[in-house]
Amino acid sequence: MNIFVVNSGSSSIKYQLFRWPNQQPVCSGLVERIGYSNATITHKVFTTGTPQEIQRTLALPDHEAGLREVVALLTDAEQGVLQDPAEVQVVGHRVVHGGESFAATTEVNDEVKAEIRRLFALAPLHNPANLLGIEVAERIFPQARQIAVFDTAFHQTLPEKAFRYALPEKLYTEERIRVYGFHGTSHQYVAAQATAYLDQPETRLITLHLGNGCSAAAVHNGRCLDTSMGFGPLSGLVMGTRTGDLDPSVVLHLMGQLGYSAEQISALVNKESGMLGLTGLSDMRDITKAIEQGNASAALAYDLYAYRIRKYIGAYAAVLGGLDAVVFTAGVGENDALVRSKACEGLGFLGIELNEEENKQRRPGIREISQPNARVKVLVVPTNEELEIASQCATLLAR
Amino acid sequence: MNIFVVNSGSSSIKYQLFRWPNQQPVCSGLVERIGYSNATITHKVFTTGTPQEIQRTLALPDHEAGLREVVALLTDAEQGVLQDPAEVQVVGHRVVHGGESFAATTEVNDEVKAEIRRLFALAPLHNPANLLGIEVAERIFPQARQIAVFDTAFHQTLPEKAFRYALPEKLYTEERIRVYGFHGTSHQYVAAQATAYLDQPETRLITLHLGNGCSAAAVHNGRCLDTSMGFGPLSGLVMGTRTGDLDPSVVLHLMGQLGYSAEQISALVNKESGMLGLTGLSDMRDITKAIEQGNASAALAYDLYAYRIRKYIGAYAAVLGGLDAVVFTAGVGENDALVRSKACEGLGFLGIELNEEENKQRRPGIREISQPNARVKVLVVPTNEELEIASQCATLLAR
Repeated sequence: MNIFVVNSGSSSIKYQLFRWPNQQPVCSGLVERIGYSNATITHKVFTTGTPQEIQRTLALPDHEAGLREVVALLTDAEQGVLQDPAEVQVVGHRVVHGGESFAATTEVNDEVKAEIRRLFALAPLHNPANLLGIEVAERIFPQARQIAVFDTAFHQTLPEKAFRYALPEKLYTEERIRVYGFHGTSHQYVAAQATAYLDQPETRLITLHLGNGCSAAAVHNGRCLDTSMGFGPLSGLVMGTRTGDLDPSVVLHLMGQLGYSAEQISALVNKESGMLGLTGLSDMRDITKAIEQGNASAALAYDLYAYRIRKYIGAYAAVLGGLDAVVFTAGVGENDALVRSKACEGLGFLGIELNEEENKQRRPGIREISQPNARVKVLVVPTNEELEIASQCATLLAR
Repeated sequence: MNIFVVNSGSSSIKYQLFRWPNQQPVCSGLVERIGYSNATITHKVFTTGTPQEIQRTLALPDHEAGLREVVALLTDAEQGVLQDPAEVQVVGHRVVHGGESFAATTEVNDEVKAEIRRLFALAPLHNPANLLGIEVAERIFPQARQIAVFDTAFHQTLPEKAFRYALPEKLYTEERIRVYGFHGTSHQYVAAQATAYLDQPETRLITLHLGNGCSAAAVHNGRCLDTSMGFGPLSGLVMGTRTGDLDPSVVLHLMGQLGYSAEQISALVNKESGMLGLTGLSDMRDITKAIEQGNASAALAYDLYAYRIRKYIGAYAAVLGGLDAVVFTAGVGENDALVRSKACEGLGFLGIELNEEENKQRRPGIREISQPNARVKVLVVPTNEELEIASQCATLLAR
């Protein structure tokens, strides 16, 4: 079975093709600058020993044109991996916001599309692009089953005490303002990987997705109990360009006393804050270098970043009533030994003791970086959202 | 020595008179509805066996008129406790916001007043009324030493990783946007009481001030390391009418999608949210009754309130690297056994085990409500901000 995974953004399409049940992608790629005359496609083919990369720059008026070019590459006489687009039996779509309507992966039909559209107000930057990706894929792969995998679905198990804000009740019942949480596909994937690795009757995990966006989740036996992103992808951990937790008084002060508009605040807290705002640098590797050169702002930014994680580890240990493992994943979580080390500092009382030598190693696959006798295991688990999407599609169809 | 403690609000003055070093107040009272023709004064005298209460309704055009009436009561021929206002040697003023300028209690002079005025922008609702109280007291007690005790001062020991937000650096350096924290006088008082009670070489405390406003603090050997209120008194725990922690995305959504103005949001999150917003009720005793009558919203509100506390206990245990005691104080913290019980649920892994029988008792003074062998003591410590203000004044003058 060929499963084609699509992550459609406002001007981009990320994709991977899996030949199920083989978990290795056959090819993957990224279309960027859709809508421009100098759009690009980067396409990688993994069928031969060494991956082949094809780069193209061309005019792409819209998503449909972009996806048709991808299909041309997939079915290319020389480097193609398919003879006909009809060989794609399943298209798995990443959809950011599933609201309260979608607690699980769902096959797309008209009602599902209508509901994704109703959720535009909650995810105005993402859901329209995700729906567009679905509609284009329906035209290009009319024979395939279209399946939506929601970034919020894993967090739909949160109990009400964790997902409600202390706001007037009608803002929840009428306006649907609550904690949704994001990165669900990643948390679910690494939680399942860690649970299999630990192989014990009960698992209380804290999963830390540290990429450009960052979030934490408390997961008990595979069930998510709490997560740090909330109504939007802003609260919780310090991120690349987002603030994470911020007293809403600051927003009111910026407007009331300093004359910011709502748009300016949105840009400020989403795009100009986090590690970038604190240091002027957006890449953690550059920030690490700056620390080595004695840059005080960079050192503070790392302190803040790690301190916030540490507080969430404590808070979620309380939510779980104890702790079996802490799981680091995504770009920073998988690769930044200093972040992991600082985040675990002083948590010996919880049973968290890092093995600093192991922490510094770089190896593929799941790595255990805690002391052998530590009560709590600290794991690095590489995330793979595309694989999780393909896998959820396969599971849904097997039912 | 007579120490007169003043807490001046926008239309009210709370006061207590202490004859130092006797820690019992000689009299106390409250002036309300200043600026109205039907202002009231409630004045209590404690010099005789049973407290005497005097109630007056009268026109009070301003704070000065109000304080002059209080002086008349203090020096009343029959029920007065002073012969002459000049017997007041010290006036201790509660000032809400000391910014970064005041890390300790400070004798008032022109520079101090100018700085309190500069901080109006950070505390527009409180500092103007506090400064007015100082200026009126200077005229009425010209011979007394005027001393300012700041609600933020105790939190000035927070390390930078705890007091900075992940916002662009200049919002801190130029606009002074950071965590200040509030209720400092109360946290400091109960932390000192608990430390004396525990009498051990090192103390790692979490103090929970649960009144109409609520906040938590992590205190290590008397030094505050973190606190849940931030730039304003809004973030952190769920409160009587305030949200506590709230994703700023919600604020942006209310403005961008639902047409709220900044003023409406300020009223919403400060006055219409918290327990009131969740239940329609503002008194915890009414909410408890509603729970007994099967009211689901009331039960959820309690869950939310306690769950938030539980997460802060976990987070601050991580900040402290372990925990010796949890301290409950203020109206709800001292009196609401159900809140204490639910807040401590499932924290056995931290060494927190409540003695439910002791928890239900009501007795004056410090009470230990944990199991005798529990690793972490849970204490109820009645707060007394007026006494702490008087005590800080006396300490400052003794130097």
